Amino acid sequence: MRMVFVDLEELKKAIKKDTILVSVIHGNNEIGTINPIREIGEICRDKKIYFHTDACQSFTKVPIDLEKDNVDLLSINSHKIYGPKGVGALVLRDDIKLTPLFHGGGHEGGLRAGTENVTGIVGFAKACDIITKKDVEHMSKLRDELIDKIMEIPNTILNGPKENRLCNNANFSFKSIEGESIILHLDEKGIATSTGSACSTKSLKPSHVLTSIGLSPVDAHGSLRLSLGKENTKEEIDYTVKSVKQIVEKLRKMSPLGK
Amino acid sequence: MRMVFVDLEELKKAIKKDTILVSVIHGNNEIGTINPIREIGEICRDKKIYFHTDACQSFTKVPIDLEKDNVDLLSINSHKIYGPKGVGALVLRDDIKLTPLFHGGGHEGGLRAGTENVTGIVGFAKACDIITKKDVEHMSKLRDELIDKIMEIPNTILNGPKENRLCNNANFSFKSIEGESIILHLDEKGIATSTGSACSTKSLKPSHVLTSIGLSPVDAHGSLRLSLGKENTKEEIDYTVKSVKQIVEKLRKMSPLGK
Repeated sequence: MRMVFVDLEELKKAIKKDTILVSVIHGNNEIGTINPIREIGEICRDKKIYFHTDACQSFTKVPIDLEKDNVDLLSINSHKIYGPKGVGALVLRDDIKLTPLFHGGGHEGGLRAGTENVTGIVGFAKACDIITKKDVEHMSKLRDELIDKIMEIPNTILNGPKENRLCNNANFSFKSIEGESIILHLDEKGIATSTGSACSTKSLKPSHVLTSIGLSPVDAHGSLRLSLGKENTKEEIDYTVKSVKQIVEKLRKMSPLGK
Repeated sequence: MRMVFVDLEELKKAIKKDTILVSVIHGNNEIGTINPIREIGEICRDKKIYFHTDACQSFTKVPIDLEKDNVDLLSINSHKIYGPKGVGALVLRDDIKLTPLFHGGGHEGGLRAGTENVTGIVGFAKACDIITKKDVEHMSKLRDELIDKIMEIPNTILNGPKENRLCNNANFSFKSIEGESIILHLDEKGIATSTGSACSTKSLKPSHVLTSIGLSPVDAHGSLRLSLGKENTKEEIDYTVKSVKQIVEKLRKMSPLGK
């Protein structure tokens, strides 16, 4: 059994006397895990430690209640919810004083010097207005269908959980073949996918997330991440499933790693 | 005689054995001073010290030759040349290794983690394409006219130099009256101006630039900055001059500080 969520007992053990902050990703960008921030927040509150969560992937997709979840600092961003790229926000409790990284003009309450990206900020706010719960339900339904059908392929691993998973994330490893090869073949069919995270596109190392949840480097290299969008359709899911099945079969026949 | 440019002898004296970097603003944002970066760069090169210049105000307005001016690091930005807000660039010599302020995804060559503001960056590049030397000549001409006519008002100080001044900047102090009052009256006439810099809009302190060049706090409070744009016309300059003259006369009559 792979541990895909943050282990609360491990967290408690990791907190030392001089720990001042716990920072945990809410929704994982590679495997879609939604971490139990309420429980993590409770532990932090009990121990009087600040709790920060990176909710860039989960924002608008998973309900977040800053009070009940005991979140002191929350990072969110724009382009994950169809807003413009290059904009984010740090939401923080009124009584928290931060030391700025950028000094100078005193913009944004003295926290971040530099003329603000006004159009980006307005676009982010507008994106928050536009996204709906219905979009989340739609993506969740398509994701479940995608996962169920892809898992019919023999020797396939679902990376990350089936439950408590981001509505737009599916991530698989296919034994004996490389994710990179699948991606290139899918691209020819007009389907854009990825292995690992977009941030490490240029790296050839296996995903640190996949190796952390127990995958061998070989299986981690065989991973394929399929991200859903609110405008995806059932037809596109069917086409994707069909394409992945064909490609995996073809590549496995060619693979030196055996069938 | 007020010293409005960086004093090269003072600079030489300020450089100590452990100095590793000299950073000087190229074109001053308040008083339009264009500092002698070539001479400053030469001093730095001779002493084997890195030279950074903030050219946000001067970029595209004053020629910069990174080689001849001995500039190692150059900051420029977009919205000062009609590009989108919130975008800038740091141009640096290939052999300079910087320690990033933001860590994480390894974006922008590992120097600045975070998804890039793509539309902003493209807009900045486009703005560089659009701006022309003719725009600079046009603004310079209007600026000279504006300065000459405003200086006809008695007891008026031109803050900053007449020569080696940014093409779009004019800054005056009017004895016995407050800049803030002039601004409000000009605003009623549809003319947007400022005192001090936009970065310190919320501050009531007199401009540190104006007090540094020798103005009394009272005169610094009486300052008015008029920034020109490439689309300003001679008619607008005439209207502005007429409006400033009227307002200064009116406010001086009311002033408790005397005439």
